[in-house]
Amino acid sequence: MTTPPLAQGTLDRLQRVATATLSTQLFKLGFRNTYLSGLRALSPGLRMVGEAVTLRFVPAREDLATFEHITKPDYPQRAAIEACKPGQVLVVEGRAIEAAAIGGDIYMNRLKVLGTAGCVVDGCVRDFASIQALEFPVYARGPASPPHPARHLAVAWNVPIGCCEVLVMPGDILVGDADGVVCIPRHLTDDVARSSADLDELESFVVEKIKAGAAVPGTYPPDEKTRAEYEAWRKKL
Amino acid sequence: MTTPPLAQGTLDRLQRVATATLSTQLFKLGFRNTYLSGLRALSPGLRMVGEAVTLRFVPAREDLATFEHITKPDYPQRAAIEACKPGQVLVVEGRAIEAAAIGGDIYMNRLKVLGTAGCVVDGCVRDFASIQALEFPVYARGPASPPHPARHLAVAWNVPIGCCEVLVMPGDILVGDADGVVCIPRHLTDDVARSSADLDELESFVVEKIKAGAAVPGTYPPDEKTRAEYEAWRKKL
Amino acid sequence: MTTPPLAQGTLDRLQRVATATLSTQLFKLGFRNTYLSGLRALSPGLRMVGEAVTLRFVPAREDLATFEHITKPDYPQRAAIEACKPGQVLVVEGRAIEAAAIGGDIYMNRLKVLGTAGCVVDGCVRDFASIQALEFPVYARGPASPPHPARHLAVAWNVPIGCCEVLVMPGDILVGDADGVVCIPRHLTDDVARSSADLDELESFVVEKIKAGAAVPGTYPPDEKTRAEYEAWRKKL
Amino acid sequence: MTTPPLAQGTLDRLQRVATATLSTQLFKLGFRNTYLSGLRALSPGLRMVGEAVTLRFVPAREDLATFEHITKPDYPQRAAIEACKPGQVLVVEGRAIEAAAIGGDIYMNRLKVLGTAGCVVDGCVRDFASIQALEFPVYARGPASPPHPARHLAVAWNVPIGCCEVLVMPGDILVGDADGVVCIPRHLTDDVARSSADLDELESFVVEKIKAGAAVPGTYPPDEKTRAEYEAWRKKL
Amino acid sequence: MTTPPLAQGTLDRLQRVATATLSTQLFKLGFRNTYLSGLRALSPGLRMVGEAVTLRFVPAREDLATFEHITKPDYPQRAAIEACKPGQVLVVEGRAIEAAAIGGDIYMNRLKVLGTAGCVVDGCVRDFASIQALEFPVYARGPASPPHPARHLAVAWNVPIGCCEVLVMPGDILVGDADGVVCIPRHLTDDVARSSADLDELESFVVEKIKAGAAVPGTYPPDEKTRAEYEAWRKKL
Amino acid sequence: MTTPPLAQGTLDRLQRVATATLSTQLFKLGFRNTYLSGLRALSPGLRMVGEAVTLRFVPAREDLATFEHITKPDYPQRAAIEACKPGQVLVVEGRAIEAAAIGGDIYMNRLKVLGTAGCVVDGCVRDFASIQALEFPVYARGPASPPHPARHLAVAWNVPIGCCEVLVMPGDILVGDADGVVCIPRHLTDDVARSSADLDELESFVVEKIKAGAAVPGTYPPDEKTRAEYEAWRKKL
Repeated sequence: MTTPPLAQGTLDRLQRVATATLSTQLFKLGFRNTYLSGLRALSPGLRMVGEAVTLRFVPAREDLATFEHITKPDYPQRAAIEACKPGQVLVVEGRAIEAAAIGGDIYMNRLKVLGTAGCVVDGCVRDFASIQALEFPVYARGPASPPHPARHLAVAWNVPIGCCEVLVMPGDILVGDADGVVCIPRHLTDDVARSSADLDELESFVVEKIKAGAAVPGTYPPDEKTRAEYEAWRKKL
Repeated sequence: MTTPPLAQGTLDRLQRVATATLSTQLFKLGFRNTYLSGLRALSPGLRMVGEAVTLRFVPAREDLATFEHITKPDYPQRAAIEACKPGQVLVVEGRAIEAAAIGGDIYMNRLKVLGTAGCVVDGCVRDFASIQALEFPVYARGPASPPHPARHLAVAWNVPIGCCEVLVMPGDILVGDADGVVCIPRHLTDDVARSSADLDELESFVVEKIKAGAAVPGTYPPDEKTRAEYEAWRKKL
Repeated sequence: MTTPPLAQGTLDRLQRVATATLSTQLFKLGFRNTYLSGLRALSPGLRMVGEAVTLRFVPAREDLATFEHITKPDYPQRAAIEACKPGQVLVVEGRAIEAAAIGGDIYMNRLKVLGTAGCVVDGCVRDFASIQALEFPVYARGPASPPHPARHLAVAWNVPIGCCEVLVMPGDILVGDADGVVCIPRHLTDDVARSSADLDELESFVVEKIKAGAAVPGTYPPDEKTRAEYEAWRKKL
Repeated sequence: MTTPPLAQGTLDRLQRVATATLSTQLFKLGFRNTYLSGLRALSPGLRMVGEAVTLRFVPAREDLATFEHITKPDYPQRAAIEACKPGQVLVVEGRAIEAAAIGGDIYMNRLKVLGTAGCVVDGCVRDFASIQALEFPVYARGPASPPHPARHLAVAWNVPIGCCEVLVMPGDILVGDADGVVCIPRHLTDDVARSSADLDELESFVVEKIKAGAAVPGTYPPDEKTRAEYEAWRKKL
Repeated sequence: MTTPPLAQGTLDRLQRVATATLSTQLFKLGFRNTYLSGLRALSPGLRMVGEAVTLRFVPAREDLATFEHITKPDYPQRAAIEACKPGQVLVVEGRAIEAAAIGGDIYMNRLKVLGTAGCVVDGCVRDFASIQALEFPVYARGPASPPHPARHLAVAWNVPIGCCEVLVMPGDILVGDADGVVCIPRHLTDDVARSSADLDELESFVVEKIKAGAAVPGTYPPDEKTRAEYEAWRKKL
Repeated sequence: MTTPPLAQGTLDRLQRVATATLSTQLFKLGFRNTYLSGLRALSPGLRMVGEAVTLRFVPAREDLATFEHITKPDYPQRAAIEACKPGQVLVVEGRAIEAAAIGGDIYMNRLKVLGTAGCVVDGCVRDFASIQALEFPVYARGPASPPHPARHLAVAWNVPIGCCEVLVMPGDILVGDADGVVCIPRHLTDDVARSSADLDELESFVVEKIKAGAAVPGTYPPDEKTRAEYEAWRKKL
């Protein structure tokens, strides 16, 4: 669970590649469960890249999940948010609950002001319309009105969590686009970013060929001729 | 199940407060199950406030759920719609069925012409695109094409119903915004409207502070200093 | 499973009628399970009409669902796509899986270039935003990033399939609009198209009446007076 | 919703036929939704036949679902139980909730003492082991400990209800065996009992033939030769 | 999260009261979510009472959930099991997964030898038949064959967990019978045990009265006369 | 999809090993999805080993799923059953439907008379109690009364199918015990049977050690000392 520094250029590369390409490359490396299924992009036009700060909720209990308790500064939700650094992503184990919100525009605005890269919630958020207008990447199951102590109690942060049945470790790299969110194990990130950038470039070329009328066989995956055309096209970029 | 008159100003207040604030205030009063989870706002930009007229469907049976039967004027669905008064909300127990529509643009146009405040369906509606364009608040699980007798039979109206696993009594007050729909027990409405309006105003101030760079601790919930700033800000409004 | 030619005018009629009307007419003929529940229109403003080419996936197994295997020209997914003719609709048995994509913009662009009428997937697609921008009718459960061999293996095409728990036979007629997708058994299509076009026209008239203030009883279904007005209105068209 | 008297012999016939045969005969008459899916027989060795007394629950609300309220003699649950006559079956709309019990051995013992024929709950019961030992036919989703006001509020009895997404009208005939529970619309009961008794007898003969080594084709459905053997066998009974 | 000693007699009392009575008493104290819904008693004839040792699993990842890693002595699953003391209950956050086993007869035999009071798994176990024959209280969702690293990775023990969407803190008291499992917050246990023992005794008397023909009203809840009979009956015990 | 002969002794070995051991060995070979989750053993005391004959159902359509059609000798369900040879297992793609039965005691008796090794249904069966008494291994989701054309239409047999979201190819080897059913890819069977028999024997020894008081660390997986004891114990067998 160490977080070695990423290679220069890795985050830039990740800004340009599709999550579909990333999950394909991870799949080829034997990682079959890296896509956080069931989430909705509140701002599908934005991309999100950043390292995970994790936050763990457990089911609420009436004597513990009180407004007094959840507003203490060291309440894990609050501590985690204030500890987030620019470029990080807050990832929340919300246990797929759709009948309560983890938070709303107060917390999302705070995360934006702090310069974080986004927020991923395996659960719901309130103030849905405001957050959609915020120009800040948020992924959640949908909107909900009830306050979080109706169902949730935060108990820890920066521990390994399960989010949409995917393991997320603090320091793992989360990437989001309109297709959803992929979690890249930290130690694989440099390699995956590099191979994905290459594959993504090839696929852009392929889509152009297909639009121009090429059949799929021979074009994707590229046969020798297409591969040569691609290399030529690439040089011109 | 009586429906005492609401205090003057209550409906106006409810027009301005978030459903998230309402469900928070109800939660503080011990009402933990007032949010209708699983619905989608067809017009998320509109707000809805009004008292419930309820409509109950049970599963269809082939000899009863006939087109002849469901088009009689005293069929509960038709009777309920025609009985709706301006400002009321038709709330439909649709048993969460996603494979048939409760109705479509004929009924929704009729409800709009009658001056009702909206319609809430724990089920689906047909003519989804037309209804989205109608400028009339409708909440449903989504679109569906099949006619309602494929799955439903209306048997009663203005009886207590379960809608999204929340009790809705005739006369309860339904409030909807982009986060979804909350059902306020009739006898609590005046109090909840008042306390929610106050809380909502405070939260608007807090969001501004957060956007300007304030940390969450000290700002929300407000410490003495923030509280004083808020009181000053409030006076200027 | 023969595919007799459709009557002239049938496809044109289907371009103009609502899927809600089609499922109503099929229901009256005793066909209660023709609506593909659970799908989302990626381009809800487009309509889709065409005959089914079917594609069957089964669960993946690690030794068979390899990238080498799935890129062979005779892999059923590839063979089915290349075999699609203008005006056909590719319908995919994706077993409701939401954790992997059946394909993405490469395949959807190819289907568009080939002149097909659309694609229906009981599963997910990658490159969601690109496909939404493609002006090509696609219906799927939503976006997903992982490549299809993570969960799927194509084994056959143009066989009877189950799609969203509805039987789809090769040659059946699929119609889609913003309410979703209906599958019309081939041999019923001419009749259903004709009766639906009539019903749809009547309902357009009815909606206008309702908007102008008519009550539902007497207007829908039309009594003698409304029927006469409708016939008059119809002649003026 | 009238309850005409049943023909003499109908209830006796129903005591001997399988629910599988009954749902087959109902299916042939066009009734496709008569089986209450998802229930468990607490005493799978007992059969249950009787007419429905229905009981409707809606979601609980904290101010209404109080122990004081639910123990009043006219609380619908209590009123319904005390009104049950010998041979009737109490059928409960429990909305498929698995996190609270509708009742337990107090109510089940009372129903047994009253001579009722059984109890069907689309929900759970407490005191599961005691009820299993009671020699009284109960069908439910399973056991649960929490008291019913945790999730339920009874609001009416002897109204049409939905139970496991099947319509149950007061007076309908419920039949249960180890395969589950079927609801026969009242007015069809005499006919269905008669035709099912015949089919069931034939199937008993067929099973014997199959056990003795006959192939399925020719034996079921019976060809002329098997039919003749059956008629001979029948005469000997 | 302190674990103050329980009063003398508390555990004995809990050995005699129904989980249904316990959840009723907790409900009256305002604790509405204490029942672990969805579990199956592998030995429904046994009762279980003991304090929680908790174990947390998160989703597996291919590089971490290796057989080498999960068999290290300090792997949290192994450490937790070896740390269990007589009378404790191991409670496992298994995220409701039904496609892999948390463990099997090796671990359950070890827990029995150690003198623990039982094991509760929000997930599945292998060696189902052996465990059913073990005379050791185990509660799980059902059987499953695959080894736990197929879906799970243990990361911590004796932390607060969610089990069947109920909060379980280390030191909380778990009670199980044929109706399922209830989690009593530690600090409420003495009181709840006392009031439940009283209520349970009353209900035993009531069931006898009902079996003897008493109507429910007047008997439960007891009116003055029944209450007096009960007090007399009680003295004779 | 060829079915090479199995090595001598393979089937015997599979008769003695637990499905948990088989899925563990398959998992170690990289096959993560071989367990058919969600099934119930109707006779949990019986074991099942045999090669798959597959049967595919799709959703019913009213004009095709008629009793006339489904009783023709070449109807795929009937053809598949009559074609089953001694030692084979009929595996049915029942699409997880719980509201209709695939068949009942007629078909199960026929399969038993034919000497087949069992039947696996990703769906339900009627005549549940009779089949439980049959001494024939059947695995299904549970009982259901309605006839199969209410939801299903058989369209092919001995094609690749998905059963409980696991790929089953004709000729694959199915093994069932009280923990459920595992599908072993044909070409891996000899190896998996051999390695599983070894592992199973070791685990039997380990369970004995644990019962006698050994701690898990050092015993499982076995350290050098335990391994030596095991080898000694093994020689004595």
